[in-house]
Amino acid sequence: MSKFSLAVHGGAGTLVKGMMTPELEVQYRDALKAALDVGVDVLKNGGTAIDAVELAVVSLEDSHLFNAGKGSVFTAEGKHEMDASIMDGSNLEAGAASLLAGIKNPVSLAREIMDNSDHVFLAGDGAIEFAKLRAVEIKDDDYFFDRFRFEQWQEIKDSDTFQLDHSLKKDSKFGTVGAVACDQNGNLAAATSTGGMTNKRFGRIGDSPVIGAGTYANNKTCAVSCTGSGEFFIRGVVAYDVSCLMEYKGFSLQEAAEEVIHQRLKGINGDGGLIACDSFGNIAMPFNTEGMYRASYDNSGKESIAIYS
Amino acid sequence: MSKFSLAVHGGAGTLVKGMMTPELEVQYRDALKAALDVGVDVLKNGGTAIDAVELAVVSLEDSHLFNAGKGSVFTAEGKHEMDASIMDGSNLEAGAASLLAGIKNPVSLAREIMDNSDHVFLAGDGAIEFAKLRAVEIKDDDYFFDRFRFEQWQEIKDSDTFQLDHSLKKDSKFGTVGAVACDQNGNLAAATSTGGMTNKRFGRIGDSPVIGAGTYANNKTCAVSCTGSGEFFIRGVVAYDVSCLMEYKGFSLQEAAEEVIHQRLKGINGDGGLIACDSFGNIAMPFNTEGMYRASYDNSGKESIAIYS
Repeated sequence: MSKFSLAVHGGAGTLVKGMMTPELEVQYRDALKAALDVGVDVLKNGGTAIDAVELAVVSLEDSHLFNAGKGSVFTAEGKHEMDASIMDGSNLEAGAASLLAGIKNPVSLAREIMDNSDHVFLAGDGAIEFAKLRAVEIKDDDYFFDRFRFEQWQEIKDSDTFQLDHSLKKDSKFGTVGAVACDQNGNLAAATSTGGMTNKRFGRIGDSPVIGAGTYANNKTCAVSCTGSGEFFIRGVVAYDVSCLMEYKGFSLQEAAEEVIHQRLKGINGDGGLIACDSFGNIAMPFNTEGMYRASYDNSGKESIAIYS
Repeated sequence: MSKFSLAVHGGAGTLVKGMMTPELEVQYRDALKAALDVGVDVLKNGGTAIDAVELAVVSLEDSHLFNAGKGSVFTAEGKHEMDASIMDGSNLEAGAASLLAGIKNPVSLAREIMDNSDHVFLAGDGAIEFAKLRAVEIKDDDYFFDRFRFEQWQEIKDSDTFQLDHSLKKDSKFGTVGAVACDQNGNLAAATSTGGMTNKRFGRIGDSPVIGAGTYANNKTCAVSCTGSGEFFIRGVVAYDVSCLMEYKGFSLQEAAEEVIHQRLKGINGDGGLIACDSFGNIAMPFNTEGMYRASYDNSGKESIAIYS
């Protein structure tokens, strides 16, 4: 028997149904389906969970629809600062990168850091220097330019306001993307990537590149990728918390994921959601917001794509 | 009854006894004692755990003996890049800063971020910009210059070698400082600060500014500050792991701290130690290295200062 499973997300937040046209919804579903297919193909052919999550996230980063990679939002200085991380549940190896400008696929840089450095977490100009040594693809500003993101920034750029992309009422595009997978050998992996907050300042780092907060994977328990109000996910050490509830309290994947999102994260007023899978290929995708862009292929081969709850 | 406790550390690692002169040992003990006294004075006078850990860490940062603040090591570019974090166990608020140049007391910038920003984690030039807005004290390069650190760097600067300060055999100065405290109201707090690794490149971020990895505090369980091979502490989510073993498995502080350092961290080949306290004022200070600079004032008023095991 060779079972495997994969889930992807494109961010959680407040969805304004009126902003979402039927045409746009089709685009989102297509983009989620494309990312799911890329990952599932890897797994179907006996590939590893770590390859599957990297390639699924690359697919989401390459879409202008999501706030990651190509679709990243503008910072207060009119730039793009992206973060990503990846973790391999089979050996607890991890890679993370933050405050990245010009990196086409931040998740692949995180993978390079995991595979080809002695470090886990690199940031800023130093991370770019490492990326160049490893021949990670770099793009100029034009590649990341998106009219919608630009106008979103123009509206608030002279204010002190910053916006979690997913909490912007006027925005039907959410933040952060991620993937979790269980391969045919029962190995788990997780990856997360984000373009941060519109008009963000001060070199803010959210939960996406923080192992334990935005991303975690361990074959003994689960793989988790989070999306939401990053500060609360850091304070709640959310991704690892799901794992601990399973390992230390014997919770099932679903019980642990729901406890963390609906009780513990909510308890500190954190909004968002997560996707998770265990080594049996079970999948959980709880969120405490109005919606979360998500798609999954479960261990029975059932596919699901959804936006609202 | 008003009980309180506090512990500080000045890094864990391989101590070379021959390198440690009796005179130098006195200096280290005095510096640890001074930091302990600063924190204990706060608590004795009814002050908060968060103030106590901040001021104790400031005292260690201001010493040239430890790899944090004034005594920070040199990066590959001959600069100083410091990291710090702080967490308040009474409300799970946290602040962290990374890749800091010129900040006299990184732990105080972390505190400013916690108290006066909407963020948890700021890095690099953006963090410095925030520091300037908050009038956090900034020093020029001369302040951070230390002959010993400079020579340490000169020896390896043209190589690809980087050194965790604490793992450098020739170095009797260790890395990273931290403090944990329980105040008279049973509130917990933790703080950690580091100057990173000698000759480090690529904007490497270790565990010290990562909430859950290097620092964690929660009144329900414990306050933890870590020191060691940062990459392993990130992958092991070490500080939060101590808390989870207490909350989810009912371990005592001592049992949880020892399980994490001697079993789980060791299981992924991680070296280092941690200091921790719970809301009863118990203290645990396990390490799996040859030594850890440490001092504690426990809930019975007993004081202890030690270097070797």
